[in-house]
Amino acid sequence: MTPPLVHVVLGSTRQGRAGERVARWFLGLGAGRDDLRLELGDLRDWPLPFFDRPRPPAAGDYDDPAQIAWAAHVAEAQAYVLVTPEYNHGYPAVLKNALDTVYAEWGGKPVAFVGYGGAAGGVRAVEQLRQVVVELDMIPLRQQVALPRVYSAFDDDGSLRHPGPEREAASVLDALADWTPSKRS
Amino acid sequence: MTPPLVHVVLGSTRQGRAGERVARWFLGLGAGRDDLRLELGDLRDWPLPFFDRPRPPAAGDYDDPAQIAWAAHVAEAQAYVLVTPEYNHGYPAVLKNALDTVYAEWGGKPVAFVGYGGAAGGVRAVEQLRQVVVELDMIPLRQQVALPRVYSAFDDDGSLRHPGPEREAASVLDALADWTPSKRS
Repeated sequence: MTPPLVHVVLGSTRQGRAGERVARWFLGLGAGRDDLRLELGDLRDWPLPFFDRPRPPAAGDYDDPAQIAWAAHVAEAQAYVLVTPEYNHGYPAVLKNALDTVYAEWGGKPVAFVGYGGAAGGVRAVEQLRQVVVELDMIPLRQQVALPRVYSAFDDDGSLRHPGPEREAASVLDALADWTPSKRS
Repeated sequence: MTPPLVHVVLGSTRQGRAGERVARWFLGLGAGRDDLRLELGDLRDWPLPFFDRPRPPAAGDYDDPAQIAWAAHVAEAQAYVLVTPEYNHGYPAVLKNALDTVYAEWGGKPVAFVGYGGAAGGVRAVEQLRQVVVELDMIPLRQQVALPRVYSAFDDDGSLRHPGPEREAASVLDALADWTPSKRS
């Protein structure tokens, strides 16, 4: 049986974003597993306009080509990991916009979080996102990565200078494997 | 002495947005006051890109023309009212992006909220925004408007079918007048 597909959504498109290292580190930790297939979902590859449609995505009648393509991409995955920076204690607009642009494709699927940032490791952005994903009918998992001081966290080879978050990442991956229904794969 | 200028920021750019009626209703209520000058700040007039600069706005070295123009506009006001819809229990991307794109221009100024939506009147989006504006060094006020069932709330002439929120709006305006330092005007 093919293991379920998990999109690791990189929620920053900023020049010089720290999130690229974070996402690649997380993908590397999940690469050896036979119970999950992880794929990077880079929002730079999905340049959506600010949501401006006259009809709410929950109505399901998508009418914008970028929205329709994004919906088809989101539908491919059986679970998600949202890799998010924290901007002013909240989530970045580009990630919220990607979440808000479609609806049914997210529903009934587990979602976990990898936050990064300064001293707090993005935890405030993650808490706000948990409130959002519930309304998208996703299943937010308790397990999470909180990666503080992200600008000095990695060696040049992309590994962490100080261990700890690898264990958090493993618990995220275990929880995703536990909660992603195999009947969906 | 010129009364302080308050930007009433319309936080939706969506086609068919309900927020336009809400913002115009609120502006109408404030039009007769001699202690505040209210001006509409429509985000449709400020088409910012998704924030992607290499340097954080808190550094103050803005390098994008749209960002520089937005900063000059924001700097004109001595206080703000954020008129916000609620998308999936959170704030819309277009409003968060406008907040995140600049920094120092918001600081040290009072901000109040007019939320609108379904049964809850946008209160969840407003609570998330309060967490954000504190980190922008703004002063979030307790007084707020929560406008439920927005699609049936207004008569054709733009007045509310059921009274109540006018009183909330008056308390918002009073609080803004109380807390906006006149020395800034």
